[in-house]
Parts: sequence; C-alpha cells; structure tokens
Amino acid sequence: MTEYSLAVIPGDGIGVDVTDAAMTVLEAAASRFGFSLAPTRFPWSCAHYHETGAMMPEDGIETLRGFDAIFLGAVGWPDTVPDAVSLHGLLLPIRKHFDQYANVRPHRLLQGIEGPLRTDGFDILCIRENTEGEYAGAGGRVHQGTANEVATETSVFTRMGVERILRFAFGQARARRGHLTSVTKSNAQQYSMVFWDEITRALAAEYPDVTVAQIHIDAMAAKMVMAPETLDVVVASNLFGDILTDLGAAIQGGLGFAASANINPDRTAPSMFEPVHGSAPDIAGQGIASPIAAIWSGAMMLDHLGEAEAAAAVLSAIETATGRGIGVRPGSHSTAEITDTVLEALKG
Amino acid sequence: MTEYSLAVIPGDGIGVDVTDAAMTVLEAAASRFGFSLAPTRFPWSCAHYHETGAMMPEDGIETLRGFDAIFLGAVGWPDTVPDAVSLHGLLLPIRKHFDQYANVRPHRLLQGIEGPLRTDGFDILCIRENTEGEYAGAGGRVHQGTANEVATETSVFTRMGVERILRFAFGQARARRGHLTSVTKSNAQQYSMVFWDEITRALAAEYPDVTVAQIHIDAMAAKMVMAPETLDVVVASNLFGDILTDLGAAIQGGLGFAASANINPDRTAPSMFEPVHGSAPDIAGQGIASPIAAIWSGAMMLDHLGEAEAAAAVLSAIETATGRGIGVRPGSHSTAEITDTVLEALKG
Ligand SMILES: CC(C)[C@H](C(=O)O)[C@@H](O)C(=O)O
Ligand SMILES: CC(C)[C@H](C(=O)O)[C@@H](O)C(=O)O
Repeated sequence: MTEYSLAVIPGDGIGVDVTDAAMTVLEAAASRFGFSLAPTRFPWSCAHYHETGAMMPEDGIETLRGFDAIFLGAVGWPDTVPDAVSLHGLLLPIRKHFDQYANVRPHRLLQGIEGPLRTDGFDILCIRENTEGEYAGAGGRVHQGTANEVATETSVFTRMGVERILRFAFGQARARRGHLTSVTKSNAQQYSMVFWDEITRALAAEYPDVTVAQIHIDAMAAKMVMAPETLDVVVASNLFGDILTDLGAAIQGGLGFAASANINPDRTAPSMFEPVHGSAPDIAGQGIASPIAAIWSGAMMLDHLGEAEAAAAVLSAIETATGRGIGVRPGSHSTAEITDTVLEALKG
Repeated sequence: MTEYSLAVIPGDGIGVDVTDAAMTVLEAAASRFGFSLAPTRFPWSCAHYHETGAMMPEDGIETLRGFDAIFLGAVGWPDTVPDAVSLHGLLLPIRKHFDQYANVRPHRLLQGIEGPLRTDGFDILCIRENTEGEYAGAGGRVHQGTANEVATETSVFTRMGVERILRFAFGQARARRGHLTSVTKSNAQQYSMVFWDEITRALAAEYPDVTVAQIHIDAMAAKMVMAPETLDVVVASNLFGDILTDLGAAIQGGLGFAASANINPDRTAPSMFEPVHGSAPDIAGQGIASPIAAIWSGAMMLDHLGEAEAAAAVLSAIETATGRGIGVRPGSHSTAEITDTVLEALKG
C-alpha cells in the first residue's frame, strides 16, 4: 500500500481546528481508496515562538524537506506576534525555500452556496507567483524616526521567476478552457510590470492554442466582480495574486470556501497545501470554524500526490454537504457537524 | 461675478466625448448659480504625441499652474502609444508636480442603479495617496534580454507623504461618519507598509473622535465585496488605492459611474478632476460613452472651487436622470440623451 508522509503544521488559532477536521476526512479517503497517510505533526506557531523565540527551529526547512507534502492550517496571532515576524518566520520561507512558485487557487461556487454577486456562473483558476516579486523582502528605512524618514520596498522580478510561473499558467490554461489572463500594472510600474508583459507576449507564441489577455490589476479587480464568468485561468504576481485570490474567495462566498496549493511543479521539494483564510483568533478553539477550505486544500494535496480519484471523491463529498445546506454560511454549523457530514458523504 | 479659469484636457478616446458633455452641464450650473467658467482647452493626448513627440509641451506643467482647476477626460491609446509613455507623459506628472496628493473617490450607488452585488447600502469615500509609494517610478532592469535578467521596482514612502495623506483622511472621516480604514500589507511588506501602519497608529491619538481599523489589502478587497456597508472613509497607498477604487467603481455599477478628484489640499497648485474610467478606444467617438462619471467629477470640481450649492445641484440632476432609468446601463442611452436629461433636471 502506498504511504505518503505528511508534515502537518496546524499553526495558530482556527488553523488547529480546521487541520484536525480535514485530517480525519483525508484519512477516511485514504482508507476508502487504498493508500495510507503518515502524518507528523509540527507545533510551529506563535505559541511556539513564545516558548522558543522562533516560529520554527533553525533546521525547520531541512526537517520538512523529506516529506511528500506539507499540510498547513493558518499562521499568525497579531496581538502577540507581529504578522511580519510570524509570517516571515514560517509561511513565507517555506514557499520560497521549496520553490513552491505556483500558488494555485480555484474560485467557483460550491453546490448550495449563494455568493455576494448576483451572477454565479464562474469557474476561475488563479495562479499566483509565490517566491519573489513584491514579497522579495528587499527594502529599508532611512532617517528612521525623523521627519525626513523614507521607507523603501523593492519588488524583484527575475526572468527565471516570471517565465516559470507563466509557463505553468499557460499549461493550466491549455488543460482547461484555453484562456489565460495575465494581470500587471504596466501603465504605472514601468520596470517590473513591463518586463512581465514582455515575457508574456514572448511566451504566448509557444502556446498558440491558448488565447491571452493582458489586463491591469485595477481593471481586473473590477472584472472579478462585474464579469467573472469571462475568466478562465488568471496569472499574476505575488501581491496581485494575493489580492485577486481574496477577491476570488469573496465572490465564491467567503474565505471559508477558498482552498490553495503552493506547488513546486518540478517536484524538487514538497508542495504545501493550506486554506486561504487566516487564524481568526476571535473564533479560535470554539469549534465553529468552517473546515471546508482546509478539506478542499487537502483534496488538492491528494490530487498532487497522484490520488486523483480520492481527491475528486473528497470534493464531491464537500459539495454533497454544502448542497444540503451544511456549512453554507459562517456559523451556520459547527466544525464537527460539517466534518461529519463530509465523512458520511465520503462513504459513498 | 466670480470667474474660474479651467484648464480642460479632454485627452484621448471617450475622454473627448465625456469632457464635452460634462462642460455643457458645468456651464449650465454656472449660469444658474451666478458664477462663470473660463475654460482653456489643451489638446494634449496620444494624437498630440504623434504630432509633436510629447504628450504635452515642455512647459506644460508651468502652463497649467496658473489655472483654478484642471478638468481631464481620459488619457491613453495603447495600440499606438504604450501606456507607460502616455501616462508618465501627462497624467502622472500633473498629479505629482502639483502635489495633488489626495485622490478622492466616492463609491455609492446612484439612484436607480443596480450594482453587481446583492447588497446595496454602502457609502464609501476612498482616499488614495497620489504622489509617491508604488508609483515612484524608481527601478531598473539588469542583464536586459538575457536569461539572468532582473527587473526591480522600488516603492518609496516618505514620512511627509504618508503623514499628509493620513491627516487628510482623518479629516474626511471626522467630517463623515467618524470611521477610517487604513489599508496596507504589512504582513508581507515589512518596510513600507509597517512604516505606514506605525504612522497611522501615531496619528490616531490626535483624532480621538475617529475610530481606526487597520486591514490588509487582500482582506480589504474581500470586504469591499462582502461587507461594503461597514466602510466609511478608506485610505490607502497609490497602488492599493488604485485597485480599491476600481473595485469601488465595480460595486457602484461600473466605471461609468466613478468620479474622482486629485486634490492639492494646501491649494498651492491647481487640483485636477477626472472620471476614473479610461479612454475606451473601442467605443470612442460613437456618442455612446456615459458622461456620468465626468459630470460627477465636474461636480466635485465645483465643490472644490467653493460652489457647493452648484455641485449639489449637478449631483442631484445626475440622480434625477439615473432615477428615471437614463444612463443606468452601459449603452442604454447615448451620451447626448444622458447629458440632455441632466441639463433638463438641472433647470430645477
Ligand atoms: C498571510 C499572508 C502573508 C499571506 C500572503 O499574503 O501571501 C496570505 O494572505 C495568503 O494569501 O496566503
Ligand atoms: C491610468 C492609470 C495610470 C491610473 C492610475 O493607476 O493611477 C488610473 O488607473 C487611475 O486610477 O487613475
């Protein structure tokens, strides 16, 4: 029987609630589809930071490297650890060190979900660059604390980085409806975004079966709301992808429904799967967080591991639950109620 | 009789159509309310670029400096002049040189407009920093054309720049419902956005009557769609404000309804008023562009010039038109039909 080793990092707040819930569903899928999961749990989190002074141990990245995949809940507890510390100490280094350069996020309405838009027929796959760009971490502050203080933050785009994410996105578009929308802001950012646009045009020639639209981030944000049904695969930089995928989450009914995969397409290191939502300290530990985004992220993990059938069954079990009205609104059902309904549906 | 000198720059595409329409409405308001407008028309545009090699003459900025206000249509004709050229040659330098540091954009549904959201009770004022930040224009490309090429784009935030826009926003919040939402991305951008957050917290103490929420741009994009009715005044950097105001335009029914003012609050140079929409080459010159955003921007100009009553009358005339179903959907009525209805309503 194939066994997959999983590094499980529940993290903070509701990250713990939803990871536990999702793991029971993934275990059930494993036993139904004849493979097994070998999870190792890592307590890396803001609590861990308080105990040890670090979000993860010095050799954290090396420890994770040997696993088949990483399953993460949510990281951050802003009242006690600044986000800039908690995220740069755990989530962001994992994405970068393991070359998880493709952050993949599906946006569509699950069965039974009524979104905030009047329209509902959309099915978007957002591909977000996940290792460089506006998240490069380059910058500084000069004359700190004085009236003349200046802060800079430098986006860094490499040809390697832009090409590989665009190629990945072209590939996804080819496997779907053949349409790719590349999002930049080249009318205001003359270096980075013009560079991205040039590479997009150059690569487009290699994918004649894919139609490409180039659009500015501002117009794109409007389009996600006005005409989401016209979109297929969307590709964007780290920051723009971050913004568009929260917007995607919103139009699909909220962050409670937004799944994500941080993929290393070359499989030179493990990929990481996590719901888009944060740790939500205000509702942590109350058993009311929706596990749907985490379970869906888990399904994406099974798919990545090669268990496509199990992945599809999990997603279909989620939709059986939401189709029956279970977990369709924040707080409508408890974490346990939703999980149990999905487990029941997964029995087939 | 008070006379206001206006620099009128119709620009490109539908910029011309909507500027002409809006000017007739503003002239009508002037004669009804007992002041006069002295417009000077400047043909600066992409066509001008083709003739002269520049979007505006070398002394363009100096020429504009003497006017009471600038009224602009739209700039850009991407098929013939790269946006990066047309915008950095006209629109963006005006904003910067005249210290129009507050880009003010109201987002609410006009009478009779059905937006894309199921919800409709929102009234948001977005204040966007307009002179620095992500639009600083600092950056470069290294190893150009090679596999190792790197492009950088540096955001530059000064304490002066951040403080003045925040003070302006606090003031607006005080004059409205007393709530300010400051939008950053300090969990990923540790220099620029942490700096902005620090200044926000420091200034908050000076405005005890204003409640302040700090939120990340991704969560904010979702909130604009999920819960826009919880927002009052929103303040953001140049780029984030750009994105949020297109999103604001979307939820208010589309770019055809989005007005904007580029304000120099210290009145050391003219302010500029322009619809948020672009030049829309595809429908230019057909007489079908909606002039509503331009007329509303014109009303903001009258208000800025001290003609509050005339401004209110123009806005109310717009809503009389939309309330009757005129101009409520793109293409539902011609530019002339909408303008005539507004003119008729303005007669009172
Ligand atoms: C927590 C934060 C740093 C992160 C990001 O911006 O990448 C999150 O918003 C996400 O989208 O995964
Ligand atoms: C045309 C473009 C440079 C401009 C901007 O991004 O500022 C526009 O989108 C706007 O919002 O006024």
